[in-house]
Amino acid sequence: MNREQLVNQIKSKKTFLCVGLDPDIQKFPSFLLNEEDPIYEFNKQIIDATAPYCVAYKPNNAFYEAYGLSGLHSLEKTILYIKENYPKHFLIADAKRGDIGNTSSMYAKAFFNRLNADAITVAPYMGSDSVKPFLQFENKWAIILGLTSNEGSIDFQQQNVNGKPFYLNVIETCAKWGTDKNMMFVVGATKAEMIADIRKIIPNHFLLVPGIGAQGGNLQDVCKHGLIGDVGLLINSSRNIIYASANEDFAEKAGLEAKKIADEMKTLLH
Amino acid sequence: MNREQLVNQIKSKKTFLCVGLDPDIQKFPSFLLNEEDPIYEFNKQIIDATAPYCVAYKPNNAFYEAYGLSGLHSLEKTILYIKENYPKHFLIADAKRGDIGNTSSMYAKAFFNRLNADAITVAPYMGSDSVKPFLQFENKWAIILGLTSNEGSIDFQQQNVNGKPFYLNVIETCAKWGTDKNMMFVVGATKAEMIADIRKIIPNHFLLVPGIGAQGGNLQDVCKHGLIGDVGLLINSSRNIIYASANEDFAEKAGLEAKKIADEMKTLLH
Repeated sequence: MNREQLVNQIKSKKTFLCVGLDPDIQKFPSFLLNEEDPIYEFNKQIIDATAPYCVAYKPNNAFYEAYGLSGLHSLEKTILYIKENYPKHFLIADAKRGDIGNTSSMYAKAFFNRLNADAITVAPYMGSDSVKPFLQFENKWAIILGLTSNEGSIDFQQQNVNGKPFYLNVIETCAKWGTDKNMMFVVGATKAEMIADIRKIIPNHFLLVPGIGAQGGNLQDVCKHGLIGDVGLLINSSRNIIYASANEDFAEKAGLEAKKIADEMKTLLH
Repeated sequence: MNREQLVNQIKSKKTFLCVGLDPDIQKFPSFLLNEEDPIYEFNKQIIDATAPYCVAYKPNNAFYEAYGLSGLHSLEKTILYIKENYPKHFLIADAKRGDIGNTSSMYAKAFFNRLNADAITVAPYMGSDSVKPFLQFENKWAIILGLTSNEGSIDFQQQNVNGKPFYLNVIETCAKWGTDKNMMFVVGATKAEMIADIRKIIPNHFLLVPGIGAQGGNLQDVCKHGLIGDVGLLINSSRNIIYASANEDFAEKAGLEAKKIADEMKTLLH
């Protein structure tokens, strides 16, 4: 999916919400556990209920790998379901890959060609040749970890390096390897005030902002500093939406939760 | 596997070679392509031929993920084969994972419980809570990316940060989160002279050294600076061994290549 298609979807639906699909069977409504493939069934119902209110889905690979081959099969089926039923939705594989050049190429093939994801999250520590292989696919995206929303971001990302935080350095360097049409950055919403600094360096890149909801970010703050002419933001929420209820109404409640955020987004886009 | 078991194996066999299992079907001898599962068949023959000369195997996840579910099935079978036939060999999942705490926990379960790996490589950019979940399993290891052997290591790892290269900072900080009995570090052999600086910070940790062979490292240099009382080194070679020949004798040639390195190691251990 290219930038124009993504932006068109955002503008027509007036939402820039991304729903994180992090299936944890222990949090599922118990009646789902009788299904042949509880993860797929859970995802399908969450997707159907939230699709009108979001423009992207972000399955988190760890939550599928933890269930072995059957989990990965559920992931494949989930992506196929989205591609067949909601082909305009942007699909992000949250896999945080990154390795030496020939290995990153293999990961790129795995996620872009095999799984048919539109984007993959990429860890930058190994540098240029670990990132560039993800930029060689037409209409596919690498989403680089810039500033993450977790506690551990203080250990390296926020470290003061020669007068500025290390994550600014990472974002500035990585931005040179691609364009704002094949690269985005992960920017943790728990530090909304830092988005202003980031926007000075990358005024036109899309930012994928996790951490709204369970991790505690604030939507208004993020928009104040992050919104640009063609929006330039994807805001992710996972647990707050998909585990809004653990009862038979889980999908309905997930839809309501997604709608609530989408309504707030509509106001903010005005 | 605990440190004592690993060291015992190294001392009794007088080798600290790790063989990287990076299957690329395009490099396989053509007759293997008629097998039902060429990747598994390739690995099995490589393992049987090299087992006497190495103490560890390191399947690189990307090379299995690139073939989708069938590739991951080959990986599962390969690990099972090693565990059943060569239970003393140390098994490293080279997956370079790392994410927020609850997600890293899922990855740890996937690799330690499901796949039964002894160790997993971990990317440190997201900090403490992304690394610590991998340290919660008895006799399992997190192998943190310190200094990698690829070109892109100059972009961030080798950057001068407040007077010293960033990778020293990363190694020093991460070392505090675990012990030399549940944590190792990846240290690229193409920069052997840097190992001396690293040993000043972590005199007792095992180092996993990739880059001997195809990536151009030098075994003698690495040993000069890296060897410690209970060896403390695992030296990986992948392509040089497993693709030593593309003919029917591929396994035999792989064995000879592994033996050549093991012989050099025996001399160096004297």
